[in-house]
Amino acid sequence: MALVRPENQQQARLVRLLRDGPRSRVELGDLLGLSRTTLTTELDQLVARGLVETAGPAASRGGRRSSLLRLSAGVRFASVVIAADRITVAVTDGELNVLAETGEPAEVRSGPEAVIGRAVELVGKLRAESGVAELTGVGVALPGPVDNGTSIAPAVLPGWQRFPVRDAFATELGCPALVDNDANVLALGEQHAGIGRTFEDFLYLKLGTAIGCGLVLGGSLYRGATSSAGDIAHLPLDEDGPTCVCGEIGCLEAYCGDAGLVKAALAAARSGRSTALAARNTAAGTLTVPDVAAAAIAGDPAAQTLVRDTARRLGQVLVGLVSFFNPGIVVIGGAPDGLGHILLAEVRGVVYRRSAPVATGTMPIVLSDLADRAAVVGGARLASDHVFTVD
Amino acid sequence: MALVRPENQQQARLVRLLRDGPRSRVELGDLLGLSRTTLTTELDQLVARGLVETAGPAASRGGRRSSLLRLSAGVRFASVVIAADRITVAVTDGELNVLAETGEPAEVRSGPEAVIGRAVELVGKLRAESGVAELTGVGVALPGPVDNGTSIAPAVLPGWQRFPVRDAFATELGCPALVDNDANVLALGEQHAGIGRTFEDFLYLKLGTAIGCGLVLGGSLYRGATSSAGDIAHLPLDEDGPTCVCGEIGCLEAYCGDAGLVKAALAAARSGRSTALAARNTAAGTLTVPDVAAAAIAGDPAAQTLVRDTARRLGQVLVGLVSFFNPGIVVIGGAPDGLGHILLAEVRGVVYRRSAPVATGTMPIVLSDLADRAAVVGGARLASDHVFTVD
Repeated sequence: MALVRPENQQQARLVRLLRDGPRSRVELGDLLGLSRTTLTTELDQLVARGLVETAGPAASRGGRRSSLLRLSAGVRFASVVIAADRITVAVTDGELNVLAETGEPAEVRSGPEAVIGRAVELVGKLRAESGVAELTGVGVALPGPVDNGTSIAPAVLPGWQRFPVRDAFATELGCPALVDNDANVLALGEQHAGIGRTFEDFLYLKLGTAIGCGLVLGGSLYRGATSSAGDIAHLPLDEDGPTCVCGEIGCLEAYCGDAGLVKAALAAARSGRSTALAARNTAAGTLTVPDVAAAAIAGDPAAQTLVRDTARRLGQVLVGLVSFFNPGIVVIGGAPDGLGHILLAEVRGVVYRRSAPVATGTMPIVLSDLADRAAVVGGARLASDHVFTVD
Repeated sequence: MALVRPENQQQARLVRLLRDGPRSRVELGDLLGLSRTTLTTELDQLVARGLVETAGPAASRGGRRSSLLRLSAGVRFASVVIAADRITVAVTDGELNVLAETGEPAEVRSGPEAVIGRAVELVGKLRAESGVAELTGVGVALPGPVDNGTSIAPAVLPGWQRFPVRDAFATELGCPALVDNDANVLALGEQHAGIGRTFEDFLYLKLGTAIGCGLVLGGSLYRGATSSAGDIAHLPLDEDGPTCVCGEIGCLEAYCGDAGLVKAALAAARSGRSTALAARNTAAGTLTVPDVAAAAIAGDPAAQTLVRDTARRLGQVLVGLVSFFNPGIVVIGGAPDGLGHILLAEVRGVVYRRSAPVATGTMPIVLSDLADRAAVVGGARLASDHVFTVD
């Protein structure tokens, strides 16, 4: 089957509406302001192209019965989420519901050929299991800056610099491929299936190994002049703070990324400030973010201080971002298990206390309730935004 | 004459193109992808509505001679720029060239009735002098946050809170009125007549009494969820800095606004750190920003340190903003006379040293070369963006 895409703006608007769920003919006409004749013509073409199908009669609104339309079962997207230590892949339907998902540990530093090869195998496995003959598109998330379908961050992804990731997936999977950084993909997932759905302008803050954010402005992802909008990992917070992986001093990520938190936890363990962390470090030979979380939840004061310090610094950065960008909502994802609410309380305290009321008076700050699903949905959304658009 | 506006999207696109200067019929058709028939129909209507006129034959491109079209002499915009201590008004043609401009000192704290009344008189005077019978629209800049045509910043504009500024101008001048904060209006001026013209995404940083910025994203001014995008004046830089007019401690404006600079200069004069500033303070009984500039230019080390400290703090804030927003260019306006280049050098040093190369590698940081003209052109642009748009 050759690739089918909408042929004109009206068809593109129709399939994007149907991506949010089935609609009756009458609703589609009303929402897009199309005459009955135009609507029929465009829908007939979309049906003929295999993009749309009839799903039976719509619920009656009085008057003549309208039929229900939906994206056809031939529309299938794949998502590939490449993290520093893991690959996750999924297959979705046209409405971006996840039909099948799998993942496994992977070392991104083993280079693009190995990682992409394995991701392609995993997608193939899912397609075979779920009977997906053709893919309509694939969206790929990389754990670092991306420009024009390639990685541009040698420090984070050694060996990936300028590797043609997009072209490799497009060739291997035989469908359009789109590549973006993980924070942008997470923001897209939140826009499609999370609370971001109801906001035109929002900020998604991603915590974890790397810190980043995704900006949705006027209903679209904003990437900036050179695709690096939202790259806040290396904002300098302090001129004499910890050394960052990037080589600079006092970056946000050096304080608030997973590695920074673990480093601070090890210092607390070794200095005797935290008996809980010291005991765990002695037992396991090292510490992890879950160890810090467990200690904080168990009431260890030093671990709690670490978490609150992290949240306070995130809050200080957010004060600047929300004053500048004035989003409708801030969504925080990737908080360590069990720590989300402690982090959130502290972040809210700082942001609401030190921001202009006009910018934050009605702005919620919430934890993402999609967890890992945001990334796979976001990958599918990335692909579908491209395929469901006419240039 | 009743208000004439474009009647459909094609007419709106035609008048917006002609706002940038006269075009031949052939160029207009090519740029908008319109058939000769459609183009003729829409242009005929625009001519009939008094918006467009023929300006003679276009330069030959070989083949049949095309005629040149331009916005008609009936299209006239007014700009009103209300600063803390001054009113400036201008009248422009449809291409936003300033036909006449005047201004006078005014105390914004005397309240909206007095200030608006005087601004309306000044506009009337300009109209009489330049023979402008009808205004197509008026754009108004206020020195503080604006939402929905009213001022929402009691601290900066006492007495103006929620006063219907837009409605007052619309009624008095008998044309559509648009109101925005000065930083946004300056950014619009830069977009129309300055270097911003060649960038889809840029950041305009406004210095002076109040500090603010305007963001142009994808070719449009971005105002945020509650019209406060770019309000960076009260970003907290330090927990134990100077007290700000807003009542908080260590705000950007408390350091880098005119009042903050003067306060620091007075401290330098009184402590004996600056003989130049001390002498000036003794002679004049106080200090002004031009005094600080004169002392810095004359080589007074303490005054130069003040200027560099100001620039360094602005630079630190810009590092965050450009990482987050990834603009194509940063334009700085409102720098004190004679200090622009000293400020710029220091700001560039900080931003280029501490930002991600991917965000700032190709991003220029420049001083606005429009000076005060940016505001009056921006006011006209604000009005014309509205009038030349079809909902």
